[in-house]
Amino acid sequence: MNSNPIGVFDSGVGGLSVLRHLVRLLPNEEYIYLGDTARVPYGNKSEETIIEYTEQAVRFLLQKGAKLIVIACNTASALALKQAELLSPVPVIGMIIPASHAAVRLTQNGKIGVIGTRATMNSNAYPTTIQHLSEKTLIVFSNPCPLFVPLAEEGFHNHPAAQLIASEYLAGFHTTNVDTLVMGCTHYPLLTSLIAHELPEVRLIDCGEYAAIEAERLLNYDRNEPMIHQYSSPQITFFLTDTTTTFLEIAERFLGFSVSLPERISLEHFGNTGNSI
Amino acid sequence: MNSNPIGVFDSGVGGLSVLRHLVRLLPNEEYIYLGDTARVPYGNKSEETIIEYTEQAVRFLLQKGAKLIVIACNTASALALKQAELLSPVPVIGMIIPASHAAVRLTQNGKIGVIGTRATMNSNAYPTTIQHLSEKTLIVFSNPCPLFVPLAEEGFHNHPAAQLIASEYLAGFHTTNVDTLVMGCTHYPLLTSLIAHELPEVRLIDCGEYAAIEAERLLNYDRNEPMIHQYSSPQITFFLTDTTTTFLEIAERFLGFSVSLPERISLEHFGNTGNSI
Repeated sequence: MNSNPIGVFDSGVGGLSVLRHLVRLLPNEEYIYLGDTARVPYGNKSEETIIEYTEQAVRFLLQKGAKLIVIACNTASALALKQAELLSPVPVIGMIIPASHAAVRLTQNGKIGVIGTRATMNSNAYPTTIQHLSEKTLIVFSNPCPLFVPLAEEGFHNHPAAQLIASEYLAGFHTTNVDTLVMGCTHYPLLTSLIAHELPEVRLIDCGEYAAIEAERLLNYDRNEPMIHQYSSPQITFFLTDTTTTFLEIAERFLGFSVSLPERISLEHFGNTGNSI
Repeated sequence: MNSNPIGVFDSGVGGLSVLRHLVRLLPNEEYIYLGDTARVPYGNKSEETIIEYTEQAVRFLLQKGAKLIVIACNTASALALKQAELLSPVPVIGMIIPASHAAVRLTQNGKIGVIGTRATMNSNAYPTTIQHLSEKTLIVFSNPCPLFVPLAEEGFHNHPAAQLIASEYLAGFHTTNVDTLVMGCTHYPLLTSLIAHELPEVRLIDCGEYAAIEAERLLNYDRNEPMIHQYSSPQITFFLTDTTTTFLEIAERFLGFSVSLPERISLEHFGNTGNSI
């Protein structure tokens, strides 16, 4: 079991921001990164579709021998974590629970903001989880920021237009007096400086970082025999459902080092009646 | 054959801007609109994936008895028109050829601009087609505007941020002195006022309008027996690969009248080995 890979699933390339934290905290592991780039983005899709796609991805990663699955996509975590856990004999870490734990620990005035895709916000996963984890009553304010993903992907995250849009999306948080804001989408850490400019007094939570901390804890301390694997450097294999010419460049921007060419695969045959394991 | 429906295919809801022109020019027809909303957008995807998805859509529309297929998505038209025509025993109208014909007819100084998704621009379909259709040498300048789609879908098409982004995307056209600009993406007509504000002297071409004119010509004049069908009002059935709560509202905004609930279908089984006809 020890030498098996960690599976990381995202709707596209945004999950590389989560992989970066995993590789930093667990550098001696083997990783399989699965990006559903042929069907990205998930953020405006229906619950039914998001569950179907996530189940296909989990089946794929299990077939590849994953010893742990990290769902790096907040939208998939919000809507399909339970279904993923039901399918998987190995642990599944989503984005919502680690980030919610962090928000509960870090808030001092009990007022927490959450931003994310429309699907994540509509699911109410963050407010429900945050309240569930806290003994005292907290107030959670949330707002979808759907244009942040295309702005980040197009490299407009420092553009004056992005600042105007951020001002509009985040305006409501000024009056609510939140002291902590969960950036509930893997792309949003790319907009950290912009969000911080708008909300300078607010502590920003990067979900990927807390998910990586949870993975590190799980692999090192939670088992009788630690599962940690001893490669001299991170081994990462990339599987994408669509390959575009910009992947290598984007991956290096997210990760800070060169990566190998991705392999193009299809998830459509990993349905209920397909190659399930 | 006469009473069969016209099939309209788009990657999502943008093709409703094309359907609007079809319904205006051919109001007595039955329509089947297929939007691949589960896998939208196509504009940043690879050629291989766009061809695969388009072929599935064409097979679906043929199975529904389409007498004519309109590919309302510029990206699919640019990359997969030939493959669609090879599959289809009925005529297929894409966006590129009618709009290119219009640009060639309308330009006076021989300098034409084209904007669209990254995939459409990378395909060079517009410059190639425009040059092929003209006897004299024309100069075509093109520039991708990938953020226009999410800005239009999020209702930011009149926002100051959209104007800033439009200024940046369109700046190059000032110096090139184009007198005609093809809005080579179904979403862009929603940004007409913004684009016109930036390029006030330039004639803007709405692809959907010219594709509808071509459909009208084909059904009424090109056959020995005209195929035009005589419903008293347009009959439209909507098929989407994902259904979201906002579809009815968006469809009414695009079309100007109320529509029936869409049916959710899956295209993944319409591959080479699937239900091909």
